[in-house]
Amino acid sequence: MYATHLSCVFCGEEHPIDVVYKCRKCGGVLDVRYDYEKLRDEVNLSELFSRKEDSLWKYRAFLPVRDSRNIVSLVEGMTPLFHAESLGRVIGLKNLYIKDERRNPTSSFKDRPYSVGVSMAKEFGAKATVAASSGNAAASLAAYSAKAGMDCYIFVHDKVPANRILEIQAYGARVIRVKGYSGEIFEMSLAASEKFGWYNLNTTFYNPYTVEGDKTLGYEIYEQMKFGVPDWIFIPIGTGPLLVGCYKAFKELRDLGLANALPRMVGVQAEGCAPIAKAFEENKEEVEPWGTPTTIARSVSDTLVGHPEEGTYTLRVIRESKGYAIAVTDEEILEAIDLLAREESVLAEPASATVIAAAKKMTEDKIIDKDEVVVCPITGTGLKDIEIMRKLREKTPLISADIGELERVIETWMK
Amino acid sequence: MYATHLSCVFCGEEHPIDVVYKCRKCGGVLDVRYDYEKLRDEVNLSELFSRKEDSLWKYRAFLPVRDSRNIVSLVEGMTPLFHAESLGRVIGLKNLYIKDERRNPTSSFKDRPYSVGVSMAKEFGAKATVAASSGNAAASLAAYSAKAGMDCYIFVHDKVPANRILEIQAYGARVIRVKGYSGEIFEMSLAASEKFGWYNLNTTFYNPYTVEGDKTLGYEIYEQMKFGVPDWIFIPIGTGPLLVGCYKAFKELRDLGLANALPRMVGVQAEGCAPIAKAFEENKEEVEPWGTPTTIARSVSDTLVGHPEEGTYTLRVIRESKGYAIAVTDEEILEAIDLLAREESVLAEPASATVIAAAKKMTEDKIIDKDEVVVCPITGTGLKDIEIMRKLREKTPLISADIGELERVIETWMK
Repeated sequence: MYATHLSCVFCGEEHPIDVVYKCRKCGGVLDVRYDYEKLRDEVNLSELFSRKEDSLWKYRAFLPVRDSRNIVSLVEGMTPLFHAESLGRVIGLKNLYIKDERRNPTSSFKDRPYSVGVSMAKEFGAKATVAASSGNAAASLAAYSAKAGMDCYIFVHDKVPANRILEIQAYGARVIRVKGYSGEIFEMSLAASEKFGWYNLNTTFYNPYTVEGDKTLGYEIYEQMKFGVPDWIFIPIGTGPLLVGCYKAFKELRDLGLANALPRMVGVQAEGCAPIAKAFEENKEEVEPWGTPTTIARSVSDTLVGHPEEGTYTLRVIRESKGYAIAVTDEEILEAIDLLAREESVLAEPASATVIAAAKKMTEDKIIDKDEVVVCPITGTGLKDIEIMRKLREKTPLISADIGELERVIETWMK
Repeated sequence: MYATHLSCVFCGEEHPIDVVYKCRKCGGVLDVRYDYEKLRDEVNLSELFSRKEDSLWKYRAFLPVRDSRNIVSLVEGMTPLFHAESLGRVIGLKNLYIKDERRNPTSSFKDRPYSVGVSMAKEFGAKATVAASSGNAAASLAAYSAKAGMDCYIFVHDKVPANRILEIQAYGARVIRVKGYSGEIFEMSLAASEKFGWYNLNTTFYNPYTVEGDKTLGYEIYEQMKFGVPDWIFIPIGTGPLLVGCYKAFKELRDLGLANALPRMVGVQAEGCAPIAKAFEENKEEVEPWGTPTTIARSVSDTLVGHPEEGTYTLRVIRESKGYAIAVTDEEILEAIDLLAREESVLAEPASATVIAAAKKMTEDKIIDKDEVVVCPITGTGLKDIEIMRKLREKTPLISADIGELERVIETWMK
């Protein structure tokens, strides 16, 4: 295929397409580079971006897997994009679009980076995979590893709810609970990877290939917008690979002459854990790690302890796109969950709903014009976090099977 | 469009396309009839079944909605069908296919009948919808009603887990808990429908239009099998509309000259609530209501109290197709859940997994040949029933962030 090498986004040092994680010279983030001239010569791009296929592997020319037999797919990507007219009306946007990433095989966008990441593990001959995560990433990695016939080891915090562990174990993955800070648990995954030779697939920027899977979100938006570029794309960010990957797709499309503009990227965090948004607001060059997270939006709750330079990289990309990093409160997130479900029938997890809260805020603040085109991916399902709804919902009446009792209940509702 | 009238499947009495539920003459199940000659004259069928579209509304010529502006869609249907090679190997089938209905907007196949059912509610000018259900049906109806801007009332059993209620309420539906037997709760939905004029959308055969949405599963299987007909289709059945609808699609395709065979339909129930399988085994003409259900497969746990003739109708269709009705145990269901997750990375709810258990059994019993083509839809996600996994999974080790402790855990696993 067309991937040629890895290049450090900080010092430019080049590395081969191989089992490499961070830059061997400076510890920076590695980015996959391609021979786009060759790709353009050999691939009929207008046909590619018009053709309908079931999975994101349609874009394999833009992905680092060399041998198609190594592709590990559960039919991921190609999720619906739709005009959220009703929700848009409520928050003041005429052209609000939702991209429903809950439709992926394990119900979150993580299936994009892991379909590519586990395919690379297979290409490298790995026997096992490992990551530190207790959320969507862990479930997705477990699912793709099972499909690939690889063992999968997941490190989770010892306070993770039992149901999340059950989801990961369902696919046959080995879950290890670790007493310690999230930074320490992350470090355990690195140490175990080194010690046992397990292929490391943390979805920060640690693994350089997973972000290529995130890239496919951008191609799909381009296609579904009828080869157009939205004015704004909102992405919930912990470390930020989905935002960086999505923007990379649009840069490729522009450089290949397929798109004539770039979207402005908005990275959204929760106020209880917002290292990147803080650095953006304070106009800083570098992101600093966060202390203790205090938010219901667990999926984007990344303190960046041990890898703050990855946040700095995401911040740089946001600025390059003339975008914003913004934080929203848990109250705003809950309101957005409610709006998504009631106006668009989309049940979203808290981290996913942050983008709606942020779009609302920026529209109210007139940063976004009501006619601009705004795309918000909904990255994960509310089904895994359904208890959150308890904060929103009323008590449920209990009656006997008697129409008179029902009438009395209806009357109280009608008041 | 092409729907002409409703016809009673028992006495043949005709009724108009209107707010009618059961046959006004004999109380039987009503079936939507079409003018297929006109349809064939006006619709380019080979183009229709080749064209790629995002939702099941591509098949609108075969659906009863007359005015397209009444379509209430959340981009449902068009779910992936894939060759389950690994699982097939385990259960002895070379051509086992899974159709992943978890990819629908509310994560179950119920979005098919409700997209059509709520569209009909809109066409009839209904202001509110109602159903008795505490599972996938309730969540789906709540979601579609919200999209249509209609009030939605859901009657649930008073012992329903809180999380299922939260899911329904998330979409703004009003949930009423009722003390009583499932038959009584069902009756409450009928009484409320009559009293308050709420459009009744129970997904038994009570509403004659929802089964038309179920029909689209059949068209998709036909298309995805490259215009072929599988030898067998396995469907989990409570009352049976998905089985009946799916078979109806193949009969239409055959009658229109598009398919040259019909699939054999296998209706699968859980042994703890198996009125239809029992009648089949005992070679009876009529299905009798079941007593108290005792199974983990709640989504197909329908005693048929109050509407046994609907089970009789499903039994008749199964026999017409030269198929089977079969019951599996909870142990077999748990094993099938495990197999689906480990071999195909598909997290299924218990009712969905019944089809895999049944296919395994019938292959072992040589009723199905190893080369025959078998399609099993996985009708709902395991995420809503994740506690079930507790029965399957081991204890999770807890360690400090110390590589030595990890090594000791790994050693015990390797033994």
